[in-house]
Amino acid sequence: MDYAHRKSSRLIRLTDQTGNPLSNTEVSFDQTKHEFLFGCGAGDAVTAANPVGDARADAIATERLEKWLKIFNYGTTHFYWDRFEPKRGEPRTDILMRGAKLLKDRGIPVKGHPLCWHTLAPKWLMDLTEDEILRELLARIERDVTAFRGVIDIWDVINEVVIMPVFDKYDNGITRLCRKIGRFGIVDQVFRKARACNPDATLLLNDFNMSQSYEILIEGLLDKGVPIDVIGLQSHQHQGYWGLEKLEEVLTRFERFGLPIHFTENTFVSGELMPPEIEDLNDHVVDSWPSTPEYEIRQAENIRDMYSVLFAHPLVKGITQWDFTDGCWLGAPSGVIRADGSIKPAYEMLDRLVNHEWHTSFAAKTNADGIVDLTGYRGEYRIFCGDRTGSMILADGDASAIIAAVADR
Amino acid sequence: MDYAHRKSSRLIRLTDQTGNPLSNTEVSFDQTKHEFLFGCGAGDAVTAANPVGDARADAIATERLEKWLKIFNYGTTHFYWDRFEPKRGEPRTDILMRGAKLLKDRGIPVKGHPLCWHTLAPKWLMDLTEDEILRELLARIERDVTAFRGVIDIWDVINEVVIMPVFDKYDNGITRLCRKIGRFGIVDQVFRKARACNPDATLLLNDFNMSQSYEILIEGLLDKGVPIDVIGLQSHQHQGYWGLEKLEEVLTRFERFGLPIHFTENTFVSGELMPPEIEDLNDHVVDSWPSTPEYEIRQAENIRDMYSVLFAHPLVKGITQWDFTDGCWLGAPSGVIRADGSIKPAYEMLDRLVNHEWHTSFAAKTNADGIVDLTGYRGEYRIFCGDRTGSMILADGDASAIIAAVADR
Repeated sequence: MDYAHRKSSRLIRLTDQTGNPLSNTEVSFDQTKHEFLFGCGAGDAVTAANPVGDARADAIATERLEKWLKIFNYGTTHFYWDRFEPKRGEPRTDILMRGAKLLKDRGIPVKGHPLCWHTLAPKWLMDLTEDEILRELLARIERDVTAFRGVIDIWDVINEVVIMPVFDKYDNGITRLCRKIGRFGIVDQVFRKARACNPDATLLLNDFNMSQSYEILIEGLLDKGVPIDVIGLQSHQHQGYWGLEKLEEVLTRFERFGLPIHFTENTFVSGELMPPEIEDLNDHVVDSWPSTPEYEIRQAENIRDMYSVLFAHPLVKGITQWDFTDGCWLGAPSGVIRADGSIKPAYEMLDRLVNHEWHTSFAAKTNADGIVDLTGYRGEYRIFCGDRTGSMILADGDASAIIAAVADR
Repeated sequence: MDYAHRKSSRLIRLTDQTGNPLSNTEVSFDQTKHEFLFGCGAGDAVTAANPVGDARADAIATERLEKWLKIFNYGTTHFYWDRFEPKRGEPRTDILMRGAKLLKDRGIPVKGHPLCWHTLAPKWLMDLTEDEILRELLARIERDVTAFRGVIDIWDVINEVVIMPVFDKYDNGITRLCRKIGRFGIVDQVFRKARACNPDATLLLNDFNMSQSYEILIEGLLDKGVPIDVIGLQSHQHQGYWGLEKLEEVLTRFERFGLPIHFTENTFVSGELMPPEIEDLNDHVVDSWPSTPEYEIRQAENIRDMYSVLFAHPLVKGITQWDFTDGCWLGAPSGVIRADGSIKPAYEMLDRLVNHEWHTSFAAKTNADGIVDLTGYRGEYRIFCGDRTGSMILADGDASAIIAAVADR
């Protein structure tokens, strides 16, 4: 695999606090964060940010969050409308805001997922006409995108549009609206509203449908001028790893738009696979779904195989592990830690990839002008220079030197 | 099956040539043509209109055309660009014009198929840039739609767009263009050009892809304002009849646009079925593909079953039998007459449906004002009134009386 495109080479000019170059000085650089988004569902951050007052429970939440932060640098928080605003006019803004701010304070960008989806649409929409549903939907987007602006600047704006108008598991207001104004109509409306409320936000279209239908939908939306920043691809693999061939085929088909790609919802289970004949994953209901040592190895290998391909693809800018802890969605052993909080081989694999294999540590001596030449994975770095430390960001950029000041610890 | 929506009830006021009502007079009406388009490939009309000077060959062509005219009222003529203009700047306009005019003179509306398609794109496009290809394509549409206006006012504007940019059997100029400007770009360009050159034309989008991809493509094109008049669905069934379930499922999915639907290319074979594993029908090459008595019955039954469902669907406005004679496309026994010109059970079935089962003959006596009340399948009628005859069109309309004058034979 070639990961050279994830790296940059820049001259770094070391100075002291007053701007004097640190000539002929031993210096080391240690990467502390990736530019690439290694993401995960961030329910634990929301839990940790909203302590219940039970010392043991709160300690567990904090401990889980620390484990989370060690391998992830990007969090997905859940804005499912029916759960966020089960009673019309009473959104649970505060709870999510505390969780999102906690992550932001740790330098973790946060995504809100999703602003519009037929599943978990609030039941109170069912009493409204389609015109009223559209008004409520746009008002919800305006309220939430505006409230979280600066804390959450990445949004899954709309989820699973390919199936939206033909979704028939239960009647709901969003499917009704989509039938009325069409896929192109609803996507256009929600994206324009989100963009208007946060012009600097990164806006995703997200789907599990990897067929030509999704391609043509995207093609038509871009042709229409809908402001899509990132193509979101779900990859829940409860029925087994797609494998290299399918993965490359999907990449080939979706890379042609030239837009950044996020793997927004990635799942591998460390237990029995879901039977292949299940079409809607939600239809698979089991009493228990144990994680086993054998399958934990498989899960870790799946992660290694898939992440290696995606990290090598220039347009892929992020991969989000859907569940942090086993037993969440569908009760599946799909986390990277077990239900008891112990880490799994999948966690160790991610730690190895993110913090070791694809990680830059570098030591050198500055020249007479205090300059060293650094080539490393883009992201944030901590600088150590004798008793002094500093930090810098290695980003893609011109050939100019990065000036990094170090100060006493 | 309910075919009531294919009928109209109107008061018919019979007059003589000077406008006097024909009171208390025996009159009979005999339907001579359907409003519904019972179509077929019209290569035989082109052949008949372009006699080669060989008396026997020309007599065969004329005889075939008469058979054709007995059961069909709508013809598809082939404008495959590579055959129509193999040498740039030398289109075979005259040949097709003679064929189209021959049909028009017999009261048969003619469709041109297609104006844009990756298959049979002229090889000389390959020397051009995409910008030049687009110019040539639009110039071709302007030239041909303008030249045939008034003779051909129905066009398959673009064919098989779903597969167009990913078509990989051979490199060609149209696929290159579609990759450059996208499906939505190319469809928009060719439809707007066709509409500009013949504002009254009926413009079809045509595809064999019956999946959700085609639905979403149509949805996006309509959202974009592309002037599509009719949704064209191909139904080549060399691998066997779709069956009622698939047929109804397809109708359910494509009726939601509220646009007229044409089954533009319908095929049933009266021989062995093509193996199910063949994906591109063109890949099935056989030395001979005989028509057998047993399978000729099956073909006729397939026609009965499918036409009965489609004739009952209010949005379906036409069905075109792709091949008139066996052994044309793919060498398949897919005609309604055999290669030797003899009629097949499929022909007899169409004759039975079109000219008998779904046909109106009506006799009555006019009242004192010369009026009779006629309920019949919409279309053209011949009127017989003693020694006098006339004609009329029974169309959907208001409750006003149709005034029909009869004259001496």
